[in-house]
Amino acid sequence: MNRNDCAALDAADPLASLREQFTLPAELIYLDGNSLGALPKAAALALQCATLQQWGDGLIRSWNDAGWIDLPNRLGDKIATLIGGKAGEVVCADSTSINLYKVLFAALQIQLAHAGGQTSTRNVVLSERENFPTDLYIAQSLCTQLGFELRLCESESVKQSMDSSTAVVMLTHVNYRSGAAHDMAQINAQAARAGALTVWDLAHSAGAMPIGLHADGADFAVGCGYKYLNGGPGAPAFVWAHPKHHARLAQPLTGWLGHAQPFDFAAQYQPAAGVQRLVCGTPPVLSMVALDCGVDTLLAAQPFGGMPALRQKSLALTQLFMQLLRARCAQYGVRIVTPMTEHRGSHVSFAIDGELDRYAVMQAVIARGVIGDFRAGGTPADGLLRFGFAPLYNRFEDVWLAVDAIADVLQNASWNDARYLSRATVT
Amino acid sequence: MNRNDCAALDAADPLASLREQFTLPAELIYLDGNSLGALPKAAALALQCATLQQWGDGLIRSWNDAGWIDLPNRLGDKIATLIGGKAGEVVCADSTSINLYKVLFAALQIQLAHAGGQTSTRNVVLSERENFPTDLYIAQSLCTQLGFELRLCESESVKQSMDSSTAVVMLTHVNYRSGAAHDMAQINAQAARAGALTVWDLAHSAGAMPIGLHADGADFAVGCGYKYLNGGPGAPAFVWAHPKHHARLAQPLTGWLGHAQPFDFAAQYQPAAGVQRLVCGTPPVLSMVALDCGVDTLLAAQPFGGMPALRQKSLALTQLFMQLLRARCAQYGVRIVTPMTEHRGSHVSFAIDGELDRYAVMQAVIARGVIGDFRAGGTPADGLLRFGFAPLYNRFEDVWLAVDAIADVLQNASWNDARYLSRATVT
Repeated sequence: MNRNDCAALDAADPLASLREQFTLPAELIYLDGNSLGALPKAAALALQCATLQQWGDGLIRSWNDAGWIDLPNRLGDKIATLIGGKAGEVVCADSTSINLYKVLFAALQIQLAHAGGQTSTRNVVLSERENFPTDLYIAQSLCTQLGFELRLCESESVKQSMDSSTAVVMLTHVNYRSGAAHDMAQINAQAARAGALTVWDLAHSAGAMPIGLHADGADFAVGCGYKYLNGGPGAPAFVWAHPKHHARLAQPLTGWLGHAQPFDFAAQYQPAAGVQRLVCGTPPVLSMVALDCGVDTLLAAQPFGGMPALRQKSLALTQLFMQLLRARCAQYGVRIVTPMTEHRGSHVSFAIDGELDRYAVMQAVIARGVIGDFRAGGTPADGLLRFGFAPLYNRFEDVWLAVDAIADVLQNASWNDARYLSRATVT
Repeated sequence: MNRNDCAALDAADPLASLREQFTLPAELIYLDGNSLGALPKAAALALQCATLQQWGDGLIRSWNDAGWIDLPNRLGDKIATLIGGKAGEVVCADSTSINLYKVLFAALQIQLAHAGGQTSTRNVVLSERENFPTDLYIAQSLCTQLGFELRLCESESVKQSMDSSTAVVMLTHVNYRSGAAHDMAQINAQAARAGALTVWDLAHSAGAMPIGLHADGADFAVGCGYKYLNGGPGAPAFVWAHPKHHARLAQPLTGWLGHAQPFDFAAQYQPAAGVQRLVCGTPPVLSMVALDCGVDTLLAAQPFGGMPALRQKSLALTQLFMQLLRARCAQYGVRIVTPMTEHRGSHVSFAIDGELDRYAVMQAVIARGVIGDFRAGGTPADGLLRFGFAPLYNRFEDVWLAVDAIADVLQNASWNDARYLSRATVT
């Protein structure tokens, strides 16, 4: 494979025109859509409209006239189509962390109720050691509050770690570091056999691959708006609950917009039906307007085969990246940690064996105009370079150019430049 | 007083030029800034910049380069100057409901720790029956979880209702219906004597009147970004904690950006110092950019005397409204429920005695181009018409025109029009 071969793949790519939906800086190879998705061209105009017309002219009337009040639901219904949920099962609200708090609390309450409110021997929340920290922190908080134990296992031993003590299995579908994907159907089936409920964080899979929450038998899910959904920095998150749990869904963030009749201003909380009760306070409209545009960039892929077609392109991009990386960079100690099997998401991470400063390598690659990111680990030997491939806008030629930049940095030791050796706050 | 007298007051108003900061529709009298503040002219451009330049061109780099990561703190420091807090004591995050959950939980944990973790006789959260429902709902949730009792008293009997059982006094500074303001200093002093902590919701007072959280001895406060702070629909909220509580501040929404070292991605939660631990997930940048512009419209009043000068204008506007309303509308049964004393915020509410449909009156007034809102109560006899006066942009002539429209609607029974008699979802 050379650059021309990659360009030929782009020329033959039936999804190539979807890139036109985005504003991307010229001369930049952006491979960090797994952290912040690119800007949909529609978002700037939609925000102007929401600001000047809806807020400026419509003012308070826009809660009705512009449909602001239903944004959490309309957006939720759109997102449902991407993750194997149904209309009325998803709302858009708050952050991933806060939504996780809601549904993990709800799942634990269901298990407590099942045990008759007694302290039960089913007292474990099972997760994996390498889960994204915010998920572990939220689980730590709730386990302490509600008298559960958070038990962490290795990624590959989740199924073997379930037993009659498991109340909830809480996992991120695609790991933020390794890019490894859990087999959701298998884990859900095993959890159901063990009497446990499942809570999935779709942060690194929603919008990157087809997800079948119903088909695969999940109980609860949350996810992020600012990665593959292209919703903008800090975009609101989403939350899904299987309808079989709706009637007994008890969540503790009982804000007024989760009330059955919020505009009656009743003194006593009474939850709205279904997932509407997972809405808490007033929705951040401007951020939701941007997210709406982001979700629309994925819905625009429907005529081209939708998420399955995007998944095929994603797998092809990441496979090509791994192949080129092995061919050109193995000699410098590059060691890919992302699975070569299809049990992976849409980003690829690698370590670099040896003494060199991996963070500095990433900074040098960025200085070459290829943006990925660095994820620290417990020790310097655990630090990973991470590159995300958004099938809506990344090209095969981007893959070639990225590997070329990485190889060049490693070959010329250009990472060994004082500019790159100090650590920034955020990468 | 006639319209010309009001126009003369505007001509002599040293704060009049501050209105130029806002985009307001011509021919509309907007008196609902207590529900959604008007659009700052700067916000549209700031959002364009945040979208096209920071998100579109800067992409992930803008977390550092555009300072997105510090927005919760920079905005918090600005808001601190408006509410009598100090730099480093306020962060901007999430919604008012969620921030209330954090600090009410923290306050109750402090009281539990004080009782040695035992079930204590200090087991009451005291609030007022007419508090904004979301505050009561959040308190109901936490009281159930943590074994406290939520006790509701009448607005005027808060001080008498405190006793040795009171753990936390949770109040909204200015009531969303009546507009009555609590004497924060007196209540804090009484709470301190009783051994209780105070949690204040500043939704209807931040940006409308000077607040002295330190001077008046408060413990915790939360507030809203979309009312008098002009932050846009569903703008993020803020939260303040007195520094004497920072070291033991335990809040349950333990998201990654409240961690001491979020970019170490450690598996165990360790809270950041001070109020940074009140940040949970990734901040909604676009909504925060708009809020930043809104807060700046208040800081622009500093050379003109700042919040005390705005307060004087606010009192003058609401006093004029009440005087004109009594003079021209008392004959139709208009009964003002907002205090004539200075124990009031910046909105005025009234009932209308008799049989007429108050909601329809409000709709007819809106159809006349004067926007206020309607707040339902437990019974139709409790429904209130509510008009907010934002001293940054409302004019004395607005007051005259509003009363003129109300009087005209009542005199001509134009509310008795079928168009106005059905209830919309949101008002």
